[in-house]
Amino acid sequence: MIHFSINKALFLQALNATKRAISSKNAIPILSTIKIEVTTSSITLTGSNGQISIENTIPVSNENAGLLITSTGSILLEANFFINIVSSLPDHTLDFKEIEQHQVLLVSGKSEITLKGKDIDQYPRLQEVTTTDPLILETKLLKTIIAETAFAASLQESRPILTGVHLVLTENSDFKAVATDSHRMSQRKIQLEHKANNFDVVVPSKSLREFSSVFSEDIETVEVFFSASQILFRSENISFYTRLLEGNYPDTDRLLTDQFETEVVFNTSELRYAMERAHLISNATQNGTVKLEITSDVVSAHVNSPEVGKVNEEIDVVSQSGTDLTISFNPTYLIESLKALKSETVRIHFLSPVRPFTLTPGEESENFIQLITPVRTN
Amino acid sequence: MIHFSINKALFLQALNATKRAISSKNAIPILSTIKIEVTTSSITLTGSNGQISIENTIPVSNENAGLLITSTGSILLEANFFINIVSSLPDHTLDFKEIEQHQVLLVSGKSEITLKGKDIDQYPRLQEVTTTDPLILETKLLKTIIAETAFAASLQESRPILTGVHLVLTENSDFKAVATDSHRMSQRKIQLEHKANNFDVVVPSKSLREFSSVFSEDIETVEVFFSASQILFRSENISFYTRLLEGNYPDTDRLLTDQFETEVVFNTSELRYAMERAHLISNATQNGTVKLEITSDVVSAHVNSPEVGKVNEEIDVVSQSGTDLTISFNPTYLIESLKALKSETVRIHFLSPVRPFTLTPGEESENFIQLITPVRTN
Repeated sequence: MIHFSINKALFLQALNATKRAISSKNAIPILSTIKIEVTTSSITLTGSNGQISIENTIPVSNENAGLLITSTGSILLEANFFINIVSSLPDHTLDFKEIEQHQVLLVSGKSEITLKGKDIDQYPRLQEVTTTDPLILETKLLKTIIAETAFAASLQESRPILTGVHLVLTENSDFKAVATDSHRMSQRKIQLEHKANNFDVVVPSKSLREFSSVFSEDIETVEVFFSASQILFRSENISFYTRLLEGNYPDTDRLLTDQFETEVVFNTSELRYAMERAHLISNATQNGTVKLEITSDVVSAHVNSPEVGKVNEEIDVVSQSGTDLTISFNPTYLIESLKALKSETVRIHFLSPVRPFTLTPGEESENFIQLITPVRTN
Repeated sequence: MIHFSINKALFLQALNATKRAISSKNAIPILSTIKIEVTTSSITLTGSNGQISIENTIPVSNENAGLLITSTGSILLEANFFINIVSSLPDHTLDFKEIEQHQVLLVSGKSEITLKGKDIDQYPRLQEVTTTDPLILETKLLKTIIAETAFAASLQESRPILTGVHLVLTENSDFKAVATDSHRMSQRKIQLEHKANNFDVVVPSKSLREFSSVFSEDIETVEVFFSASQILFRSENISFYTRLLEGNYPDTDRLLTDQFETEVVFNTSELRYAMERAHLISNATQNGTVKLEITSDVVSAHVNSPEVGKVNEEIDVVSQSGTDLTISFNPTYLIESLKALKSETVRIHFLSPVRPFTLTPGEESENFIQLITPVRTN
């Protein structure tokens, strides 16, 4: 029967990180609980929504935890409810004691709270991943790659494979992340410093965004492990599992070409704010588009939404070259692309009014490229 | 046909204040617009949801407005949409020009945006209030009174009169504000420094909360005017109208008594946090209550929610006197009462387990009193 005492603030932090995997409205009710496992050396908290699982370990050796384990055991507690209770406790320290089968007494200051729990036998077994030969990545770099690609994945379940980000390692060091929803695409390449085993997986973009929330940048590196159906991201205290998507990812390389007829370099934020104004008007019409007019003298944006109004606007450019061109597209795609670009300027290559155009950072190489499909207008 | 130019930031601030009266999902579609009236000396913005109306005036004399009026007129524009457009404009200055009937051209930097508006003839006439003999109140004081009482008004429309706050002036200087939902009551009294005309009105608590959001504390005083069906709060640039509730407000004075058997003085925040813990458990049961046990030795709180768990907790008191008593009540009422009390300590007077108990600030006089009805338990 469990008995331990712990620093409340640190325990709460670990509970909240674990809770990110827990949905209170899960179709499987037992997944709304948090699993607490106490051994002589550590406490492990587990949460899962069936898609993502998080394991959070607080070792006795962590001096900030003030963790004193008197007796071991394991229990399930309603996650949201338990976390609210813990955060409301009056004292810095929490004494957690199982007083009878699946009944827990929390003592903090002059508060005594008794909670009913459940047997851990009811908790589903989470799939396991063999933890050998890790791929080691900097957390910051991995979070950057996710921010640069995951937004371009599809939100629609009609083609499930497109809701994921395609992560591929070839030649033991050529890493590529790519996402597309068939209207736009975003691809980041990186050369790994250390060789690793090749892989080719599709990870749900939602899981990757969740990973970015759970792994803060003070966790310097992440170990990545693969199984046939899962991927595991692991740091010293946190293990983050997510299911992989099944199926073949489309060949996105064939979409990319070096050809272009028109090149314009914009200031990233100026272009973004112009598109946000355009979007306000275009959004009032169904499938509203913005028309970009590029001539040798001036670049301008135009939206005409008969019921609401129109926008005409000149956009400052850093440089432009090539043939004149008029192209229409959904400004939302361009806004989201520009948000993902951290560079001060953006280089856009156009081929024709009906062919996708590409965006690359103005200052940099070709390791980050985005592609947006225009809308045909008459 | 309107034509003016104005400082964008100041214009946006006035638009946003006016927008507080506008609901985008109004049953009367025309009320989702903002009315803009331009005279030679000022711009007036008007928004209304039928219940509350706000008029915001920007005079040419306001140096921060950079207001240059070339031509006068008036127009209606879709409020949310127009405000989003204005806030997206690139330059510090906005040029606003009516280019043809009900069509407006906004120019800011290199952006030109054309919007369709409507004729002001379609806008309903807002009821008028005669502006003579104002009651003058400090904004800060009025906001305090609202914070101390409005929360205790009913949210249920079954007895509409109880959704309001009863404001009464007698003897030309005895001001009283009181709200009750029939389970609890909150009453603040104030002695006015300057004599004013007596009044007796019931103002929707929702309108008063909206007033508090619109009138910031840098507006030092507010003029208050009454008509048979409306109240007007007016500062230099803002007029805030709200409808009054019709009907007789119940006689709340008869609920108050000086008798008590038990007195306990608590630290306000300690009692509040104890009640918040109790509420977490009581809330898991329908109509959950907390039981407060007062003996000469110790004050303790107990909640027992069979399915979820229980709380037992000793509460530190500043002082206590009188007979022992056990009383049950809904902890939410006490939590909300304590939030409304700004004093460090709270004095609670109990008469019996079935009679309402009163809360007054620990340090202060009897100008602010709250009352909570207990729950009978077996």
